[in-house]
Amino acid sequence: MEHLKRLFDIDPWKLATNELHNTDIRLQESLTSTGNGYMGMRGNFEEGFSGDNHQGTYIAGVWYPDKTRVGWWKNGYPEYFGKVINAINFIAMDLYINDTKVDLATQTVSDFYQELDMEHGVLSRHFTIETNDMKVKFSFERFLSITTKELGVVSLKAEVLEGNGTIKVVSKLDNNVHNEDSNYEEMFWEERQVSENVVTARTVPNNFGIEQFTITALMENTATGTHTSEKETAAFLATESFTFEVKSGDVVSLDKKVVITTSRDIEEAKQLTAAQTIMTEVNASSIEELKQAHATAWEKRWELADVVIEGDDEAQQGIRFNLFQLFSTYYGEDDRLNIGPKGFTGEKYGGATYWDTEAYAVPLYLALADPSVTKNLLKYRHNQLPQAQHNARQQGLKGALYPMVTFTGVECHNEWEITFEEIHRNGAIAYAVYNYTNYTGDTEYIKNEGLEVLSEIARFWADRIHYSKRNKQYMMHGVTGPNEYENNVNNNWYTNYIAVWVLKYTLENYKKYQAETTVKLTDEEISHWEDIIANMYFPKDDELGVYVQHDTFLDKELMPVSDLAATDVPLNQNWSWDHILRSCFIKQADVLQGIYFFNDEFTMEEKRKNFEFYEPMTVHESSLSPCIHSILAAELGMEEKAVEMYQRTARLDLDNYNNDTDDGLHITSMTGSWLGIVQGFAQMKTYNEKLSFAPFLPEKWSKYAFHINYRGRLLHVLIDTDVTITLLSGDALDIEVYGDVHHVEGTMTTPVKK
Amino acid sequence: MEHLKRLFDIDPWKLATNELHNTDIRLQESLTSTGNGYMGMRGNFEEGFSGDNHQGTYIAGVWYPDKTRVGWWKNGYPEYFGKVINAINFIAMDLYINDTKVDLATQTVSDFYQELDMEHGVLSRHFTIETNDMKVKFSFERFLSITTKELGVVSLKAEVLEGNGTIKVVSKLDNNVHNEDSNYEEMFWEERQVSENVVTARTVPNNFGIEQFTITALMENTATGTHTSEKETAAFLATESFTFEVKSGDVVSLDKKVVITTSRDIEEAKQLTAAQTIMTEVNASSIEELKQAHATAWEKRWELADVVIEGDDEAQQGIRFNLFQLFSTYYGEDDRLNIGPKGFTGEKYGGATYWDTEAYAVPLYLALADPSVTKNLLKYRHNQLPQAQHNARQQGLKGALYPMVTFTGVECHNEWEITFEEIHRNGAIAYAVYNYTNYTGDTEYIKNEGLEVLSEIARFWADRIHYSKRNKQYMMHGVTGPNEYENNVNNNWYTNYIAVWVLKYTLENYKKYQAETTVKLTDEEISHWEDIIANMYFPKDDELGVYVQHDTFLDKELMPVSDLAATDVPLNQNWSWDHILRSCFIKQADVLQGIYFFNDEFTMEEKRKNFEFYEPMTVHESSLSPCIHSILAAELGMEEKAVEMYQRTARLDLDNYNNDTDDGLHITSMTGSWLGIVQGFAQMKTYNEKLSFAPFLPEKWSKYAFHINYRGRLLHVLIDTDVTITLLSGDALDIEVYGDVHHVEGTMTTPVKK
Repeated sequence: MEHLKRLFDIDPWKLATNELHNTDIRLQESLTSTGNGYMGMRGNFEEGFSGDNHQGTYIAGVWYPDKTRVGWWKNGYPEYFGKVINAINFIAMDLYINDTKVDLATQTVSDFYQELDMEHGVLSRHFTIETNDMKVKFSFERFLSITTKELGVVSLKAEVLEGNGTIKVVSKLDNNVHNEDSNYEEMFWEERQVSENVVTARTVPNNFGIEQFTITALMENTATGTHTSEKETAAFLATESFTFEVKSGDVVSLDKKVVITTSRDIEEAKQLTAAQTIMTEVNASSIEELKQAHATAWEKRWELADVVIEGDDEAQQGIRFNLFQLFSTYYGEDDRLNIGPKGFTGEKYGGATYWDTEAYAVPLYLALADPSVTKNLLKYRHNQLPQAQHNARQQGLKGALYPMVTFTGVECHNEWEITFEEIHRNGAIAYAVYNYTNYTGDTEYIKNEGLEVLSEIARFWADRIHYSKRNKQYMMHGVTGPNEYENNVNNNWYTNYIAVWVLKYTLENYKKYQAETTVKLTDEEISHWEDIIANMYFPKDDELGVYVQHDTFLDKELMPVSDLAATDVPLNQNWSWDHILRSCFIKQADVLQGIYFFNDEFTMEEKRKNFEFYEPMTVHESSLSPCIHSILAAELGMEEKAVEMYQRTARLDLDNYNNDTDDGLHITSMTGSWLGIVQGFAQMKTYNEKLSFAPFLPEKWSKYAFHINYRGRLLHVLIDTDVTITLLSGDALDIEVYGDVHHVEGTMTTPVKK
Repeated sequence: MEHLKRLFDIDPWKLATNELHNTDIRLQESLTSTGNGYMGMRGNFEEGFSGDNHQGTYIAGVWYPDKTRVGWWKNGYPEYFGKVINAINFIAMDLYINDTKVDLATQTVSDFYQELDMEHGVLSRHFTIETNDMKVKFSFERFLSITTKELGVVSLKAEVLEGNGTIKVVSKLDNNVHNEDSNYEEMFWEERQVSENVVTARTVPNNFGIEQFTITALMENTATGTHTSEKETAAFLATESFTFEVKSGDVVSLDKKVVITTSRDIEEAKQLTAAQTIMTEVNASSIEELKQAHATAWEKRWELADVVIEGDDEAQQGIRFNLFQLFSTYYGEDDRLNIGPKGFTGEKYGGATYWDTEAYAVPLYLALADPSVTKNLLKYRHNQLPQAQHNARQQGLKGALYPMVTFTGVECHNEWEITFEEIHRNGAIAYAVYNYTNYTGDTEYIKNEGLEVLSEIARFWADRIHYSKRNKQYMMHGVTGPNEYENNVNNNWYTNYIAVWVLKYTLENYKKYQAETTVKLTDEEISHWEDIIANMYFPKDDELGVYVQHDTFLDKELMPVSDLAATDVPLNQNWSWDHILRSCFIKQADVLQGIYFFNDEFTMEEKRKNFEFYEPMTVHESSLSPCIHSILAAELGMEEKAVEMYQRTARLDLDNYNNDTDDGLHITSMTGSWLGIVQGFAQMKTYNEKLSFAPFLPEKWSKYAFHINYRGRLLHVLIDTDVTITLLSGDALDIEVYGDVHHVEGTMTTPVKK
């Protein structure tokens, strides 16, 4: 594909480049984003950049409800769209050489180098500028501490290679920022206080009863080398300027520490004091020590999470990049947070919570983190049950409808075909309850909170489904399936399937825990649900042996993606919307998403026929698509397809497959490469309380290995010519490998099946 | 229906009321709108009104391309939405009694009376205010001249009933106006010149290459009674103030004449001179003479157009109101104009041209105006053929797609389900070519311009239709039919039908005029079209004997409107959009629209079955719906239903049936009541070059009568106990009445069939 673009060199642990990609700065910025779960930012240059770029810093859970603007209002639209807001730019350090501002957009740069060290979570950069009779090499290093979440550190070193004169560094806290997606470039911030090295700002008032967030930024700058300095303030801006008189051979430096406190944790009046206290604590350590603590904490994360691939550095870099960015966004510490689709790397899509979390992220966190992390994700939805009930009421329906996009649980997306119709999302919320319970074996959640959520989702489905007298069957009209390249279709197989599954699973667990749960279903409800379960319509085609995506899908002009011209793809950038809608092309796994979720309910023959039918028509223009195809292809023994799809998942952003990474990274789909390896290549399954593997080793690879948590055990799984599973901690357990049960106490080994 | 609201008394020629409907001023303003085709305005009070109201003046063809704002951009969306813009308020006359501003929103008003004289096109009002020890009766009269289109006249009389003091009148040209539908309340005007009694303003620049319109307003005020006066200017504002020293019994007056010139006719530099010249000409006549000329011209319009109904003043008032407002909007003088859905009465919908013109207005203008008027409407579309080709290209398709909403021919609507999918509109454009040709017998247009338009529309259809291999039939997926309460459906019967009809009609005329036309079809095109004609799929249900609205309509939960609760309707104000979409309820005639258009292609049995099936599910929440149902009901002998639907059409705005007349009048559907009487009650048909009638007389009515132009004849049709048709001018002709052919030279009479 012609839009495929790779800015960084292949390296197992780094993104590194010697090239300044002047016309692709947005892409470069997205890829070098960093975050610590509490805050994060794009890989913006500290000294600024006058060319096209996107300056963006974001603080988790700090957002603004922006009034919904649509061409034509539809009844039921949410009043506002929740936007992740661009927050104070605190890395800023303007640079001057003899009063000329350093700007990589316009000046001649030599010796450029940028590196994101994923192993230790450090972003560094150096470059040399020759101007005004001086030649200076600047080196930056920065990190957002994962040991002290409120702390960001930027270190600058300037080395005078030639000439004498002055170097000036203006270290800034700059809240003069606005969202690119604001309706009219308005500011979402109002100033509260600006004083020496301190800025406090608050989100502007809104009409929707949403809290105004306040943040306080405090900086401390420490210079080495002869200098004068001056602190100044202006609107939304605190600066500390350092002027160094230098001569050839001099090396001067500036260390900047910034502490950010917010009203999410600390009320405005106490934020500065709290920041000062943190700064005092921080100052007990040197910059080097702070960095070391941070790097060690990253190493610990990798100890558990790392997937080692030998023989394919592209794949190795891909999986590590994905895990790095995912953990930079969310590591489960704060149960008020969730995983936004762009994390801290951009503004597109807004909102903080999509069904992606439940469908794609939960399996990863189940395996790579303590079960409490996943439980936090489930509790997040349980806490928002009243809002989900509100959403259902907005549509005139019973039960609960979890939102497509939200910060609070109240829907804030405003396309009718998504907001009102892409309701399969509700199924994914229920599926996560199953996933958690089935994976961990912990039944405490489902008995109470779980059943409360499940029963309300089930009530929604029962009310949304209608009985078609003519067909003597239940149907569901007017939905959008996971394939958003079809809208307002009838009887989307996936949605019908997951809806009925929710009814079944809820009834099953209700009956199981009836004595212990507070949830109460009426007899009428139970019999209505049972009637739906018995008489639901599922479109299928016996001749083709496939489940039909929706009622009239087979009436389309069916053709494979391979028949498209290169100028057609990506479709969403080349075809008008109606053209996309009436075409057969599938944005992301739809029927196949159902077969992935409920894998144990289908025969291999069914899986094969559906895969072979739908795969050729799938354009994978959603980042959530290729991993599902990779997993199914692996199961079906289609190694080449599995690897191709894995590659596309793992390097989606690194190679800019969908030509949209300049907007930010595809954070929630980053789990896909891990799923591709663990659930795909290794075929790890956990259905029916049973852990099983059936690995294959991609031809090009010599080895891959990963850890998983499973029911109190820590396992190491290594695939080379053999499958070697080592129980690192916890009780012995039965593991099925290629269908044979092994009782694993220490290490088991069996040859990889060809 | 509870929202039905009638503000004005029943009267055959007037809207009159003694009540000031303080909380319904927007509705009152809409209903008392006036216009002269060149400009128009809502029935705003000259002295202003501080309560909720909508000040609106509009000038035909003066508009602004406002940047499209949508929640989520879809590929292919137009860049701007064309808005009818609120223009200079030139009727304004602030009133003061002893320095207290007169404001009907807050003061006690007695003796209020407002009257719209539809026979003469004059709006008048009087009221008495008691304040500051004075009691004064104010009387206003105003009209927009249809003999001098640039002229508006306002006459004020103030009668001092009690007390002494001052009355001050501030006559204004006030361009401080903005559109209610502007995105951020921004002004669409910039000031060019303000001087004594003159304001020149220009629309602000835009990025879309659309011309900036300039308008100049010149006023002349003439007072009687002792007074002082003063002229002042301010931003966008010219005023002339008159202060009258008065005592009880005094009567003073002020006549205001305003001339408006625009860059549509005269370049900016010459507008003031042109306005002055017109003013000089106008000044040759007294106000009374100007009014008389205007009134006489209206009387002449009525001579031809009036529909006389005896025995039902509600119906009489309804049809006259509709014709009055329709002619106030468009009387065919300017071939650059078309008929916007709100005319000069509001801002909603924007744009100037909808398919309403071709589907609903053309039949009326064919019968009530010179054929050249309809030809102008056809030429308007022919002139915009390049833009229609552009619209098709935007969708990646061949041929031409006429826009849903436009000023220039380029689509400016931005809902994908309408913009991209409500393509049946293209059929209506072609149908108007047929209608004109068939009605007038003039084949000159179709041979050239007509076939150019038809062949390009046909090419669009041929490219938009796909072949479904599985069904071995042609289909059309992803459309929105006339029933906008379903979106993105497959094989909408109406759209499929009219598309194939266009192919047939184009081929038929191409073959007929091949020797004379410049249009060239390839053999390949011809055979492709013929293949589509032979193998198109039309959904129908043999058991029910109906054409099916679209593929899966019958799978819905079908129920009649009568099963809805009163709190459900209007659905568009009470149900969320998804609920509306998946329900069976029909916004406006859809299958029945097709049966109306192609009436001669269906048997009475088919008409009856389809009407009986669809009518009970139709909510008529489009103003374009009831007339079609009325016409078909009349044909089927369902008199009660025909009358009910006529009533709803004729009094849609007068009784605020859809609870939205406060936004403006439903101008394009105003033809519906005329269609209901002429094509419905009188069953006038013109298929196959044959004029026929089959009238019935509604039970409550004692008589109705109307005129029509038909192929060079002027006919008077009177229905009481007899059908009496009189040939007033032109050659004798054959007319079929109840199936019998009468050769009419003078008058023919036959009893009304029961």
